[in-house]
Amino acid sequence: MIPTLSIIQAAHERIRPHVHRTPVLTCQTINRMSGAEIYFKCENFQKIGAFKARGGVNAVLSLSPTELKNGVTTHSSGNHAQAIAYAAGLVGAKAYIVMPRTAPQVKKDAVRGYGAEVIECEPTLEARESTVDEVIAKYGATMIHPFNDYRVIAGQATATKELIEDYGKFDTIMAPVGGGGLLSGTALAAHYLCPTAEVIAGEPEGAADAVLSFKSGRIEKAPYINTIADGLMTNLGDKTIEIIRLHVKDILLTSDPEIIAAMRLIWERMKIVIEPSCAVPFAALLRNKERSAGKKVGIILTGGNVDLGKLPF
Amino acid sequence: MIPTLSIIQAAHERIRPHVHRTPVLTCQTINRMSGAEIYFKCENFQKIGAFKARGGVNAVLSLSPTELKNGVTTHSSGNHAQAIAYAAGLVGAKAYIVMPRTAPQVKKDAVRGYGAEVIECEPTLEARESTVDEVIAKYGATMIHPFNDYRVIAGQATATKELIEDYGKFDTIMAPVGGGGLLSGTALAAHYLCPTAEVIAGEPEGAADAVLSFKSGRIEKAPYINTIADGLMTNLGDKTIEIIRLHVKDILLTSDPEIIAAMRLIWERMKIVIEPSCAVPFAALLRNKERSAGKKVGIILTGGNVDLGKLPF
Repeated sequence: MIPTLSIIQAAHERIRPHVHRTPVLTCQTINRMSGAEIYFKCENFQKIGAFKARGGVNAVLSLSPTELKNGVTTHSSGNHAQAIAYAAGLVGAKAYIVMPRTAPQVKKDAVRGYGAEVIECEPTLEARESTVDEVIAKYGATMIHPFNDYRVIAGQATATKELIEDYGKFDTIMAPVGGGGLLSGTALAAHYLCPTAEVIAGEPEGAADAVLSFKSGRIEKAPYINTIADGLMTNLGDKTIEIIRLHVKDILLTSDPEIIAAMRLIWERMKIVIEPSCAVPFAALLRNKERSAGKKVGIILTGGNVDLGKLPF
Repeated sequence: MIPTLSIIQAAHERIRPHVHRTPVLTCQTINRMSGAEIYFKCENFQKIGAFKARGGVNAVLSLSPTELKNGVTTHSSGNHAQAIAYAAGLVGAKAYIVMPRTAPQVKKDAVRGYGAEVIECEPTLEARESTVDEVIAKYGATMIHPFNDYRVIAGQATATKELIEDYGKFDTIMAPVGGGGLLSGTALAAHYLCPTAEVIAGEPEGAADAVLSFKSGRIEKAPYINTIADGLMTNLGDKTIEIIRLHVKDILLTSDPEIIAAMRLIWERMKIVIEPSCAVPFAALLRNKERSAGKKVGIILTGGNVDLGKLPF
């Protein structure tokens, strides 16, 4: 069942001791350049460096002792891996994290640093899924999907819940879309707590599947995959597409040069570290300035886990 | 006269409408790694991206209409330049900023962005001072020294005043030392508001003049100048050396590799952008962990104006 307001409220109470109520930053220069009044919800300052801590912790803390007994598992090359490792550590559960062998050593180390076991596989979706299946067969671990899971979605919704609680009504609330877990949570929180706000997503041109799925109502694949926004390459799931079609106003595309420029602008002007996927909604806003002119806009800054040795500028 | 508490309080009231009360951040991972309980006062989020806004605004707003009539001038490789440009703009005065031609392009652009005129010179103290003298002779502008000025020192003191007001007593308060304006203000604020705190400075080995001056009581030059901490290459002035010898406990040296590692650690773990000079006190703390073990330490993070095209990692 699509999470209700009370389910999101319960998720918030559940995760509150384990995640940060992240700060919201504004920047006069960026407001001047964009023509909007923007409030950035800084999930790059969240535990594990990304909003994924919210959904991961809510999902793991929602499991029964029986479900937890044999540990949890997931596949992820990035922030969801760390989120599940972190969440499992909170409840003393074993975590088996399937990661592509090509994932950066620093990310594997981070997951191990939270006490999880990393199981490497070939860097394909098929290999990831079959390896998770093996883990489930061998250990009886409970799978936590990165986005197509209502507990994960309810957890991600708490970022927008906090934003509205702390800064009142918004005209527009923006988030990036990959698998759609954050976007679904954002749309639900806005729907319940600030129903006049339009929820708008940003998506890279080089992973433009959600914009197609949004129109057709079916889970579409991107025409091609080639973007620096490596957190946004996944397709929607059946749960996220339903919520997004119900409660999201629009999905706006943006190019990699625009994403890099938006990322750099935030680093230079706001002095905060954000990852490329995180810059996508702001890049989309800058491409479509007329849509947000004079409006009060909330943007979820999703994460700051970037490889400083491989910056695009 | 060395600024009294009431002079620092008046400076704070004067600048309050024009500068940010900057946030203070903590990081569990960094506390674990350092063995201390560290509160980072984030002046990288300050107006113009550095603490220098405080001293610059206080100095310019303290000038008489006669002193302002022909504009203001200063020489600076970076942040003080922006601070005076910003402050002059607040009162509608002309600003002539002398900058070494080797200063980062992003800093020159920022100064022009505040409406000031940039006058480039050779990157030596002699060239900077003679060029300012020419500006004064030609325009009759009022010189605002970057650090050897009690109004500037009183302004810089307000960062530590806020830190103590917001987070109570500290065992240790740390700041970097270049010309000593911030360090003097830090030491005065601690002396008046938390006299039990030890004030300790960090200085790069590649610009190790203050540590010598601190011992000898005379303004010494560094044995050699070669450091990534480009904001800390200046020598002390007669006003700053007096305050520092009265109220600073120690000056600790740190190497460029240590500065870069400390900077990277703060970027990666705290997701904030700081400039190399800004990482110096934290690098010095990490080199001397035993000194701050178990202590409550405040560190002034001085600024975040870094050239993203020329990162050391």
